[in-house]
Amino acid sequence: MNDRFELHERLAHDTYEVDDLDLCQVRLMNDSHYPWLILVPKRPGLRELHDLAEEDLPIMTRELVKASRAVESVFKPDKINIAALGNEVQQLHVHVIARFQTDAAWPGPVWGIQPARPYQNQELDDLLVELAGAFVDY
Amino acid sequence: MNDRFELHERLAHDTYEVDDLDLCQVRLMNDSHYPWLILVPKRPGLRELHDLAEEDLPIMTRELVKASRAVESVFKPDKINIAALGNEVQQLHVHVIARFQTDAAWPGPVWGIQPARPYQNQELDDLLVELAGAFVDY
Repeated sequence: MNDRFELHERLAHDTYEVDDLDLCQVRLMNDSHYPWLILVPKRPGLRELHDLAEEDLPIMTRELVKASRAVESVFKPDKINIAALGNEVQQLHVHVIARFQTDAAWPGPVWGIQPARPYQNQELDDLLVELAGAFVDY
Repeated sequence: MNDRFELHERLAHDTYEVDDLDLCQVRLMNDSHYPWLILVPKRPGLRELHDLAEEDLPIMTRELVKASRAVESVFKPDKINIAALGNEVQQLHVHVIARFQTDAAWPGPVWGIQPARPYQNQELDDLLVELAGAFVDY
């Protein structure tokens, strides 16, 4: 096991950095079907939530709540979905997804329903700025 | 909004009680396809994770870690999936699911893949005892 945190190459490929918190990198999934953040704790060798060190658990919780509030304020979704799955990419990462009754997967989960639809450049830049601002607020 | 906690009737119908922790009811989903717990915070009117009171957040985290460890010790899964979705049943509840590379939904999420397969009586009784014991251990 590597003793330094490195972001999994698939997460790096599929996402853009939004913010860098005490414990987690906050990243935006490059899929404009769903406003979708991913939080990745910057610790090496984590797979399960219970692998987090005792002292990191409250930080993880605080950062998840912060992400959930940021998603709510920016996107005003009908529901927020939070999930740590990791069946394919095993590096611990937590999804925080804005869901709408009008989205393509509703009311089911979003994974594997349709191919990602990448953001347009300007749309992406604006969104990253808006999201980073929302993290400052909470 | 009701000011007393009442378990949502669909959760009550689909699950069996395993344990009663400080914050959450721990329940077993009656679907033998996947060993699958649900944690329901006993507070009225919660929908999102960030609706939890500040003082309940560390308890929620501790109970989720406890559930994750119990699922790992009892089922020895390949991966644990943890998720708060709530698109259909909006009362805040968190899934803790033992996943196996051999299960019918792998590597996708479990929701909506196939109808639940209820446990047999003896199998259910044994499992509830074993799970409750695992919660004592952690």
